[in-house]
Amino acid sequence: MPALFICAVTYCSVCGHSTSTRIPPGDNRVRECCDHCGVVHYVNPRPVVGTIPIWGVQVLLCKRAIEPRLGKWTLPAGFMEVGETTGGGALRETLEEAGARVKLGPLFSMIDVPHVQQVHIFFQAQLLDTNFSIGTESLEVRLFDEHEVPWDEIAFRTVSTTLELYFSDRARGRFGTYTRAIGVAPQAGVVEA
Amino acid sequence: MPALFICAVTYCSVCGHSTSTRIPPGDNRVRECCDHCGVVHYVNPRPVVGTIPIWGVQVLLCKRAIEPRLGKWTLPAGFMEVGETTGGGALRETLEEAGARVKLGPLFSMIDVPHVQQVHIFFQAQLLDTNFSIGTESLEVRLFDEHEVPWDEIAFRTVSTTLELYFSDRARGRFGTYTRAIGVAPQAGVVEA
Repeated sequence: MPALFICAVTYCSVCGHSTSTRIPPGDNRVRECCDHCGVVHYVNPRPVVGTIPIWGVQVLLCKRAIEPRLGKWTLPAGFMEVGETTGGGALRETLEEAGARVKLGPLFSMIDVPHVQQVHIFFQAQLLDTNFSIGTESLEVRLFDEHEVPWDEIAFRTVSTTLELYFSDRARGRFGTYTRAIGVAPQAGVVEA
Repeated sequence: MPALFICAVTYCSVCGHSTSTRIPPGDNRVRECCDHCGVVHYVNPRPVVGTIPIWGVQVLLCKRAIEPRLGKWTLPAGFMEVGETTGGGALRETLEEAGARVKLGPLFSMIDVPHVQQVHIFFQAQLLDTNFSIGTESLEVRLFDEHEVPWDEIAFRTVSTTLELYFSDRARGRFGTYTRAIGVAPQAGVVEA
């Protein structure tokens, strides 16, 4: 996953004039609006997409070479790019960060992280070979047995949650699809899958 | 769902200087970069979140009062806002567009729409009562039996796909979670859930 960039909108990206903070007509939220060209600058959460790359009973993790959480371990994942699908982005990130070719499996977890305006989406994946390599955003890439996973050195709670759910499902012999939220009290009326 | 806004970045939203189109250091894609303050303006796909509101054997649909697809029928859904979860956004949109209170169920479909840079996410939902009402973005809100669904008048392919999968699952008596892509050839190595 790349570093986090959240930029305040102060100037209109279309015409360059300064924006004003107000509720546009027909809306019910404060947005950055351009009074010169009329454009409303919406900001929305961003999908982060990745895989759980499996080889036999082992899972592939990457040691981060970049901030945030430099030196911590993660599943290969990163911001989804325009023009790609969630699965396509997950395959790309797996290749970029771990040099790993995988066969993509079903959606496994979709985890909200509202305090950083992200949704983390992980797919099951089978490594096609063990010719993985260290991507530019990684210091080390290696396979772990379940008992070797460095739980105290996992970079993101979405990754540790996904790994815990994965190993739990593997132990019971049946894989589901899970929705979770990090840093949010359980929502009234929300039923977990 | 609100209208679609995709704006080209020409000026830096942080400092107002004009941006240049180039690959930033350490990246592998062309981005809009500010040579004055150094900010890189990433653009990422946006999540659209909604529900499949069920009352007995009927499903609640909204007739759109806004473009695109004014006058066509949709499930209640819209762009996820910052600070909320996917499920929280789906509940909010259901209340805003259909005046409907629901108990949110499991994730049902996650459908990529790369040509408009969106991912559409629908949750199962049970209406808590039939005191729904017409939201400002709707012309009409009503319950449909399966045989009444106006298939030729559905606003978005993600909605018709979700409804087809839902009715199919209901007929077999078991509900899954589905990933699909609209307007994309099946991806090599992608296994549908």
